[in-house]
Amino acid sequence: MTKHIAQADLANMDNRHRVNFINSLSGYKSANLIGTSSRKNEDNLAIVSSVVHLGANPPLIGFIMRPNSVERHTLENIEETGVYTINHVSQSIVKAAHQTAARYDRTTSEFEATGLTPERCNGFHAPLVKESPLTMGVKLVEITNITHNGTDFVIGEIQWIQTREEAIQEDGYIDLTQLETVAVSGLDCYHSTSRLFRLSYAKPDKSVKEIPLKGISASND
Amino acid sequence: MTKHIAQADLANMDNRHRVNFINSLSGYKSANLIGTSSRKNEDNLAIVSSVVHLGANPPLIGFIMRPNSVERHTLENIEETGVYTINHVSQSIVKAAHQTAARYDRTTSEFEATGLTPERCNGFHAPLVKESPLTMGVKLVEITNITHNGTDFVIGEIQWIQTREEAIQEDGYIDLTQLETVAVSGLDCYHSTSRLFRLSYAKPDKSVKEIPLKGISASND
Repeated sequence: MTKHIAQADLANMDNRHRVNFINSLSGYKSANLIGTSSRKNEDNLAIVSSVVHLGANPPLIGFIMRPNSVERHTLENIEETGVYTINHVSQSIVKAAHQTAARYDRTTSEFEATGLTPERCNGFHAPLVKESPLTMGVKLVEITNITHNGTDFVIGEIQWIQTREEAIQEDGYIDLTQLETVAVSGLDCYHSTSRLFRLSYAKPDKSVKEIPLKGISASND
Repeated sequence: MTKHIAQADLANMDNRHRVNFINSLSGYKSANLIGTSSRKNEDNLAIVSSVVHLGANPPLIGFIMRPNSVERHTLENIEETGVYTINHVSQSIVKAAHQTAARYDRTTSEFEATGLTPERCNGFHAPLVKESPLTMGVKLVEITNITHNGTDFVIGEIQWIQTREEAIQEDGYIDLTQLETVAVSGLDCYHSTSRLFRLSYAKPDKSVKEIPLKGISASND
């Protein structure tokens, strides 16, 4: 049965119900940990589900920071130091990653609180997550405020990437199923994935074809 | 083996290789079709993998539009009429959805070209995709230009939603596995998903627990 939900229905929803509902609408989301460190070298780690690709050249990536959320320590550190890391959440660290969303005070490191391990890459100020299968160093480019609801859109340029060599395919595509990167739906649901297929570049006069994968087994890893 | 990719390595990559590589870094992405119609009622449909949740109250949702891409017809229609639809891409319509990325001229409807069916909801100007399991009407709020690479961040407020009633859980969460919504990685890889678990709200003094799902079988649908 198709259900139609109008604006009035949304307004009448219980607050928590609406939060769960609206958070489900965008579809699957990425699961990433943002690693930062203050000028005093206090490490911070926060899970976000809003990391989004912005462009390949220059390599830009963005994420949304809600107003007055616990992740404000993250934003303060980014503003102070201009750098952060983005780390994929894989199946083996989902629960620790989710736990970083708890409202710890600023002097508590979410690394210590959750058992994840901070590591440094070539003197980069922000810590990466050692257990993450794909991690990158990012330099802040700009923070755009979305006036309509007070959120901030944090935009950065990728400086370096570390991941497993085997996952990088001949044409540059990274096989996330090998990395066991998870997807998020709603506020709190985590998913593994199975590859259906890659599809060829779409052209008006051709129907799309599946791209054969070299070096990847057709079955799910 | 861990591979470290530095900025110089990125700069030296072949253009297509870099596009595939950088597009993989954000993790899993949502797969949605943006439905629009010009003032002259020419329908347009474009697949995007950048739809992102911005807030529940007001219910805001955003997506990224690259400069000079084929999706510019979509942006022109949104600017002209102020409305659009966002439609989940499910397994059964992946290939048709991917095909909407082909560079059709403005007078060609991607609906006709791909076999997807436009439908109207209560006089809303923009067409929804009849075959999509979750579709919503959105009113434009603002378009923010990201000056660093010329992309536009299109922000809208959700006006109505249509989806299968059975997929909406008691607490408002929508079970996307029931809807067979797909996830995207890189430029062109599509994935089905399996739910691992939902996790409880994180608190500093408690470890997270799995939330039992009412009315959803534990196995994957």
